[in-house]
Amino acid sequence: MRALGFHLLTEFYGCDRGILNNVRKIKSVMDDAAIASGASIVESIFHRFNPHGVSGVVVIAESHLAIHTWPEYGYAAVDLFTCGKDVDRWKAFEFLKRCLAPEATSTKEILRGENLRDQNTVEYGPPPAKREQTAREHL
Amino acid sequence: MRALGFHLLTEFYGCDRGILNNVRKIKSVMDDAAIASGASIVESIFHRFNPHGVSGVVVIAESHLAIHTWPEYGYAAVDLFTCGKDVDRWKAFEFLKRCLAPEATSTKEILRGENLRDQNTVEYGPPPAKREQTAREHL
Repeated sequence: MRALGFHLLTEFYGCDRGILNNVRKIKSVMDDAAIASGASIVESIFHRFNPHGVSGVVVIAESHLAIHTWPEYGYAAVDLFTCGKDVDRWKAFEFLKRCLAPEATSTKEILRGENLRDQNTVEYGPPPAKREQTAREHL
Repeated sequence: MRALGFHLLTEFYGCDRGILNNVRKIKSVMDDAAIASGASIVESIFHRFNPHGVSGVVVIAESHLAIHTWPEYGYAAVDLFTCGKDVDRWKAFEFLKRCLAPEATSTKEILRGENLRDQNTVEYGPPPAKREQTAREHL
């Protein structure tokens, strides 16, 4: 399976409500998540809504990272859409998981631009846990 | 099935390459798609890359619309993530389809924030084609 990009849609449940409503903190962890993944930040915009909730997007040269928070439920919807061989979306995911400390997560991965035959597409690689498992099986 | 939001991930193949590389045009159609869906625009940011390609996000009060274009393949990856009862993601989709005139599309719909029991979640509604079909069945 080859694609131009890979898109993680992840739900963070049971996060700290104060953090989810802190627009500076959310911007900081999203920017740092982009850096952790190896992406190049083009621009990042974040807004805090009234009475609560933060929305923000980090546009990267390799697509985007986005977050929408519902502090009242301790819930955040996170998108990590990356392209190219040099950006690791799972590093952004693990970084955010450490910072937001959700009690539970649910993640789907969608391939973007699958029907293109080109050298710029990238072979799909499984997430880190499966990679490790695969490696152990071959030891 | 109830959720806080609904996220369409759509691939547009075979679009006009000139339009996909025109950052003003892409910003205009994405902003208008947000308006067509009934969303409230908070901020929209668009960038053109060198040598080609446009990335942009329209942050709306009800989540976001995003696009990344690869003019060299006539391909665009489009995200339409909306929340609430008053925004119709399918109207944004149909608007963009008319403006970008892809030869083929592929669309997946993901429910966001499914595991929350609250009055603010919305009952999942099928896309327009299926709605019409369902309506016809009951005529």
